[in-house]
Amino acid sequence: MYTAGMIGDERFAGIELGGTKIVCGVATGAGEVIQRTSIPTRGPAETLDDIRAWLEPRLNDTAGVGVASFGPVYIDPTSPRYGHIGTTPKIAWRDFDLVGEIGKWAPLPLAIDTDVNAAALAEIRWGAAKGHDNVVYVTVGTGIGGGIVTNGRAVHGLMHPEIGHMMPRRVSDDDFEGECPYHGDCFEGLAAGPAIKARWGKPLNELPAGHAAFAMEADYLGQLAVNLLLTASPTKLIFGGGVMNVGALLPMIREAAAGYLNDYLDFSALATGPEELIVTPGLESNAGLLGAVALAIGASSDD
Amino acid sequence: MYTAGMIGDERFAGIELGGTKIVCGVATGAGEVIQRTSIPTRGPAETLDDIRAWLEPRLNDTAGVGVASFGPVYIDPTSPRYGHIGTTPKIAWRDFDLVGEIGKWAPLPLAIDTDVNAAALAEIRWGAAKGHDNVVYVTVGTGIGGGIVTNGRAVHGLMHPEIGHMMPRRVSDDDFEGECPYHGDCFEGLAAGPAIKARWGKPLNELPAGHAAFAMEADYLGQLAVNLLLTASPTKLIFGGGVMNVGALLPMIREAAAGYLNDYLDFSALATGPEELIVTPGLESNAGLLGAVALAIGASSDD
Repeated sequence: MYTAGMIGDERFAGIELGGTKIVCGVATGAGEVIQRTSIPTRGPAETLDDIRAWLEPRLNDTAGVGVASFGPVYIDPTSPRYGHIGTTPKIAWRDFDLVGEIGKWAPLPLAIDTDVNAAALAEIRWGAAKGHDNVVYVTVGTGIGGGIVTNGRAVHGLMHPEIGHMMPRRVSDDDFEGECPYHGDCFEGLAAGPAIKARWGKPLNELPAGHAAFAMEADYLGQLAVNLLLTASPTKLIFGGGVMNVGALLPMIREAAAGYLNDYLDFSALATGPEELIVTPGLESNAGLLGAVALAIGASSDD
Repeated sequence: MYTAGMIGDERFAGIELGGTKIVCGVATGAGEVIQRTSIPTRGPAETLDDIRAWLEPRLNDTAGVGVASFGPVYIDPTSPRYGHIGTTPKIAWRDFDLVGEIGKWAPLPLAIDTDVNAAALAEIRWGAAKGHDNVVYVTVGTGIGGGIVTNGRAVHGLMHPEIGHMMPRRVSDDDFEGECPYHGDCFEGLAAGPAIKARWGKPLNELPAGHAAFAMEADYLGQLAVNLLLTASPTKLIFGGGVMNVGALLPMIREAAAGYLNDYLDFSALATGPEELIVTPGLESNAGLLGAVALAIGASSDD
């Protein structure tokens, strides 16, 4: 059990499991990364061998291990499949017992969550949502995913949030069929990076300012923001991911969301309104790894 | 501080504040209503006088008071407006300090929440969601509202969930303009009781089986179910309210939701699939009052 004062001095291990690479690292409880490495993602056995070779010798002076994983992943500790990967397109990883395998050589408090739930927790601990208990972290990149924290805890439930697969209202005159293999024109199918490229021939950052792609993207992400504000009721709604690197997009999303809300939400709890509510991440480099570290801190403390 | 064994024997007071009537009562921690009364809702001063006249003499042997209120209502204890009614069409109630006024004569642990968050907590304690930590309670009546519980606690955040005001995708050939004064054709504007009546001339329970109104209503509520499953990730999603009294509707909502999800969600954590996930309330008479009582129990214990 650690007090808040002690966490900053303690060390924690993090494993960020991505589709193309794994980032492993050791950081202080203050969010300072001491060592890190990057490993290409291949089949689970060889990838885990590499993770172990790097991390096991470094575990001696760490207080816990956090795993921030691509989804779907079973994160309910009461589930018989806890810590297993779910039905992913990466066939070799399906049903792989990630937590069980790591636990064999890491006899420490160990926590697993989605990469996006972990990112939300890291933003609360060190980033754009410091001091907030109700936070949503959205990533808009090759897919659209989201992590939700309510009352200070990540939402798990039946599986975990899969916000990118809600169905938006179609923007008028948009007849693009959508790219999601399950749902066609859900948010992910219409507004993730591959959909932008398929629709306009280029990613957003290669299109000229004022191109129709911006208003359409902002409309869909504004609708997504509204759905999140009216369900999870966050006081910080963070939009990250590669597509958000186009700086013009964020204010347009705020404007689209405000338009759909039509003064329905009371922003009086905020000093400055939607500018303060819908924001970009505070953590840049090491953001994914720090998500895993935030999970490790949660696993080894009561705070 | 009460243990689980003691709560059942203790008594708690509940106030269910509705738009047309107030129900006050005293119940045991086991959910048995001992006494209750109903008071017509008028202006706040005279209504509160009546509540006080009935409840104050009965507070001696109760351990706490719960208030389940129509919204919007400020339920964040750190807000300077905590316990106040928000911007409601009931002008006389706007900004009324409900908790402050009740606290003047009820020197007991006191909790306030929305009627729908309270209903979700009551269903967890005594109803259709016993033993569940992640539960959504939707009411479809004169409006569409919802309460969300994640990790065992009601979601508050910026305000509270307002799920009825998300925008569904329009059912093809539905050109009804919608009834919501803020959003026109949001879920509430298209699928609450008044919208059904305006569109078809009759409420659902007066239309013949097989009428197109059923499929359309199920489609909209199925979309709403999907949005809730993909955000709050509940293991019980409860649909209550007057419109749901038409028994044919629930299986049609399940079917519509499954169609939109298209096998995306893994129901393997459930024994029987969507039949077990999307359900009707377990509490019938006294449901609203028991919501308030559940808040009172939460206010006076740590469980």
